[in-house]
Amino acid sequence: MVRLDRASGEPLHHQLYRQIRDELRSGNFSRSSSRLPSSRALAADLGISRVTVNLAFSELREEGYLVAKTGSGTFVADPLPEAFLSADQESMSPPMAHETHLSDRVNRIPDRRKGQQFDLGPTDAAPGVLLQSGIPAVDEFPIAIWERLRAQVLAKKGANLLRYGSNRGDADLREAVAAYLCDFRGAHCHPDQIIIVAGMQQAMLISALALLDPGGEAWIEDPGFHQARRVLALAGATIVPRPVDAEGLVIQGARRRSSPRIIYITPSHQFPLGVTMSLKRRKALLEFAEARDAYILEDDYNAEFRFSGPPLPCLQGLDRNGRVIYAGTMSKILYPSLRLGYLLVPAPLADAVTKLRTTIDQHSPAIDQATLARFIAEGFYLSHVRRMRKIYSERRSIFIEQFHKLLGDRFTLDIADAGLHALAWFRSEEDVRRIERARTTLGVKISFLSFFCIDAKLPPALMLGFAAWSPAQIRDGLVRLARALEEEPAPFQRRTASHTGNSAR
Amino acid sequence: MVRLDRASGEPLHHQLYRQIRDELRSGNFSRSSSRLPSSRALAADLGISRVTVNLAFSELREEGYLVAKTGSGTFVADPLPEAFLSADQESMSPPMAHETHLSDRVNRIPDRRKGQQFDLGPTDAAPGVLLQSGIPAVDEFPIAIWERLRAQVLAKKGANLLRYGSNRGDADLREAVAAYLCDFRGAHCHPDQIIIVAGMQQAMLISALALLDPGGEAWIEDPGFHQARRVLALAGATIVPRPVDAEGLVIQGARRRSSPRIIYITPSHQFPLGVTMSLKRRKALLEFAEARDAYILEDDYNAEFRFSGPPLPCLQGLDRNGRVIYAGTMSKILYPSLRLGYLLVPAPLADAVTKLRTTIDQHSPAIDQATLARFIAEGFYLSHVRRMRKIYSERRSIFIEQFHKLLGDRFTLDIADAGLHALAWFRSEEDVRRIERARTTLGVKISFLSFFCIDAKLPPALMLGFAAWSPAQIRDGLVRLARALEEEPAPFQRRTASHTGNSAR
Repeated sequence: MVRLDRASGEPLHHQLYRQIRDELRSGNFSRSSSRLPSSRALAADLGISRVTVNLAFSELREEGYLVAKTGSGTFVADPLPEAFLSADQESMSPPMAHETHLSDRVNRIPDRRKGQQFDLGPTDAAPGVLLQSGIPAVDEFPIAIWERLRAQVLAKKGANLLRYGSNRGDADLREAVAAYLCDFRGAHCHPDQIIIVAGMQQAMLISALALLDPGGEAWIEDPGFHQARRVLALAGATIVPRPVDAEGLVIQGARRRSSPRIIYITPSHQFPLGVTMSLKRRKALLEFAEARDAYILEDDYNAEFRFSGPPLPCLQGLDRNGRVIYAGTMSKILYPSLRLGYLLVPAPLADAVTKLRTTIDQHSPAIDQATLARFIAEGFYLSHVRRMRKIYSERRSIFIEQFHKLLGDRFTLDIADAGLHALAWFRSEEDVRRIERARTTLGVKISFLSFFCIDAKLPPALMLGFAAWSPAQIRDGLVRLARALEEEPAPFQRRTASHTGNSAR
Repeated sequence: MVRLDRASGEPLHHQLYRQIRDELRSGNFSRSSSRLPSSRALAADLGISRVTVNLAFSELREEGYLVAKTGSGTFVADPLPEAFLSADQESMSPPMAHETHLSDRVNRIPDRRKGQQFDLGPTDAAPGVLLQSGIPAVDEFPIAIWERLRAQVLAKKGANLLRYGSNRGDADLREAVAAYLCDFRGAHCHPDQIIIVAGMQQAMLISALALLDPGGEAWIEDPGFHQARRVLALAGATIVPRPVDAEGLVIQGARRRSSPRIIYITPSHQFPLGVTMSLKRRKALLEFAEARDAYILEDDYNAEFRFSGPPLPCLQGLDRNGRVIYAGTMSKILYPSLRLGYLLVPAPLADAVTKLRTTIDQHSPAIDQATLARFIAEGFYLSHVRRMRKIYSERRSIFIEQFHKLLGDRFTLDIADAGLHALAWFRSEEDVRRIERARTTLGVKISFLSFFCIDAKLPPALMLGFAAWSPAQIRDGLVRLARALEEEPAPFQRRTASHTGNSAR
C-alpha cells in the first residue's frame, strides 16, 4: 500500500509518515490488525533503511497516531487524534440573512464621497497601476538585511520572543526610537514616553480614545488625511474641518465656542497640500492648545523625505506644556505591510495609552519589533532613509521634467520640496471631465484633490505619486494621461499659458 | 585617517564606507579639499584592492555623501545628507506635567480588582515563574519550519508582500482558515466570511463596535475572561454578568427588560470553570439570540486541546439565522507574540467588519499572514496541534499525579477534560491567607479564581497552568506551593478528606 518516490523532493521518511497517516485517517485500516509490522520488517519490505522507517514512526507517535508498547511493538492509537479534532457535523444549510442593524458608529465612518472610494489593498499595487500617491518604493527595501537581522534576534532571544511581549513595546525598540527622535527630529523625549503601535491609524485611535469622550471636538486639516477623519469619527469625535493657508492649519475664525479636545496636524508636510507649518503658527498653536486644554496630535508625515534645506524641528520639541502627542509610522519609510509605528506621548499620558493598547490588541508582533530595534540601532535605518531620499529625489526630477514636457500645457504642477506626491492643477474644466471618463481604463491610479476636501473649495487638481515607479514607468504613466486628454478634442480652445519651472515650487 | 582591520568580521569596504562617512559627518573635513583621491590612489595608499574602494564609494554615493562628476572625479556632497535629516534643536526643558483629564472610557476599563492586576508581559514569562495559566509551551513551536516557510513565501511573492495588503486578510489564509473551521470545528462558512484580525481582543473589539452603540448591553460569563470585560467596557457596553452552571451560561433569571446586543461565551471550554456548554443550552441560546435580536460572540477557546472524547461542533455550525460571530486566535496554538486571529462573521456583517478593521489599523502584517497560510495549507498546523495535544496530555497527567501527592490534602483539584489549566479549591480558609502572604516570594504565578468573578460568589480557588512547564518544573512549582503552606502551622486542625482521582473530572 505504500508507494515511495525517490525522485520527489519530499524526504522518504516524510512520504512514509504521510501515507501511513492518510491510510489511518481513511478508516480503511482494520482495527483487528492494529499492530504494525516491525520497523525492520517494513524496511526490508520497502527496500529502505530502518532509520527512515523509525523517523516516520517517531513522527506518527509524536502526533498520537501510533503507540509504542515496550516489548510488544507499535500499535495504532485508539482513538486516533482526529477524534479530538473533528467535530461531528450535522448536515446544515447556510445561515439566513436577516436584517442587520449596524451600530451608529460604523455608519458614522465616512466611506466614500463624490463617488470615489479610497481603499488601499493589493489590487491597487497591481502591476500596471502607475503614479498612485502614498505608495513607497518597497522593491528598494533591503529585505535580505532585514531577514538576516531577524534570524539574529531569533538566535539570540529564542522562545522568549514568542511569548506575550511588553504592552508598551520592545524595550530596545523604544530606546532606539527615542534616540532617533531626539537626534534627528528635535524631539524631547525619554523611552518611557514611547509606545509602539500598529501604524498611524492605531496611533490616532488610541490618542483619541484616551483624551476624547463621544461628541468631543476634533479639529482636522481641510483638505487633509482622509483616514484621520475616519478614525476620529469612529472614536465618536465631532469633526471640525479647519482651512489650511500658506503657514498651515488656520486657528482664527472657528466658531467662537468651538473648543477642540484634539487638533490633528501634519506640520512637516501638510497632506495633501505640501505646506510646511511656519514657526510662528507652530508657536501660536501650542499657546492655543494650552489655553483651551486641547492636545495636538502631530503626524510627522514625510519629514524624512525633504529635497532642499533642513527640516524644522518637530512641534513636540517646542512644547513646554505636554500638549503634543507625536506619531510616526514605518509604512512609508520601510514598508507598509510591516504595520509598525510609534507614539511619543507626554509622560502623564503614557499609562493610559498603554492601558488602551493592552485592551485593544495587547501589542505588536514581537519578532518584528526586535528586528526593527536592531535595524535602527545598527544604522541600517538611517542608511536606508538616505538612500531612498536620493532615489526619490531622482524620480522627482524625472517626474517634473516629463510632466512639463508631456502635460505642462494642460496642468500647473505644484510640487513641494518634501514628500512623495505632486498636485497637478487643471487648466481646463473639460480636461477634468475627460480624466473622469477615462479613469477606469487609464492604468494610472489618480486621486482628485477634491477627495481630501470636506468644506474646502479648491480648484480641480490631481494627486500623482512618483515614489514607487522607475523613470520608464513614470514616463509611461504620464504618456497615458496625456493620451487620454488628447483622444477627444476639447470642445473649446485651450488656454496655452507659457510655462516655466517656477510652477514646481 | 582610515584604519582597516582585516581581523574584524566587518567587510573592508564597509569599514572604509563607515569611516569616511563618520569623518564627513564630524565636520572636520575641509570643504575646500572636497575632491576625494581617486579610487586607484586610495587603494594603493591603503594597500587594498580598487574594487573595495569602489564598493565603499558607491555606497557613499547611493546615500548622498559623495557626488561623482564625470571626468573630474568624486566630490563631497554639499549639503551632506544630514542637512535633510537633522532638525536644528534649540535648548529645551522637559515638558511640564499639567493636570491631565482622561476620557471617561479609559477610566471605565476595569484595571484591577481585589488588589490584583492581570498584566501579561515579558516579566510574567521570566524564568523561575511557574504554573502561570494562559501560557502555551512556546519552546515547542517549530520556529525553524516557520522561518523556512517565511523565506519561501518571500522568495515567491517578493516585494508584493511588502505593500499594503488586503484589509480582509491574505486570501490564501482566509481560505485555509475557512477549510479548517469547516473540517474540524463543524463550522459553516465561506472564505468571504473570514476576516483576519490581530488576536482575540481585536476580534471582540471589532464585533462590539460593529453591533453595539454606547450603553448597549453585553452579557458575559461570570466568572469569565477578564479581557472580554475590558474590551466590551471600552466599546461602551453596559456589562451584564451572567452566572455559569454545569451547562454553561445561564439564560434564565436576567432582569426582565435586559436585552443583550452581544452575548460573549466560551462554549468549548468555559473560561475559567472548564464547563462545556450542553447541546440543549446551545440551542436555547441560539433561539434566545434570534428572539431578542442579539448576536453571540463565540470564543472557541481551547477547543483544540481536549483530552478525552470528540468535541461538540462549534455553536456557529448550529446557527441557522446568522446570529453567531465566531472568533479564534493563534496565540495559544502557535505562539502569543504572533498576534494573529480570525473572525468568522455572518455574511451580512463582513463589509462592516472589514470597514472597521480598515479604519482601526488597516490589516495584520502581510508576511506573517502569508506564512501562516502556508503553515496551515501544508499540514504543519494540524501536525503541531496533534503534537502539542500529546505533550499537554502528558504534562496534565504529571500535574494531576504530583498535585495529589503534594497538595491533595489541602485542595480539591478540579481539572476539565479540555484546556491548559486546573482549578484547585481550597479546603481551609487559613491556607488562602497563607498563599496570599507568600505570593510575591513564591516563584509560582498563581491567580485566584476570584479575580475572574464580578458578582459570582464562589469558594476560594487557585488557577494553575500546566502547559508551559517541563515535568521537573511542574513538580518544582507544586513543591513550592506545598512548602509555603507548611511553613506556618495552621492555627486550627485541617480537614483531611480521603482523596481519589475522581476530583479531577
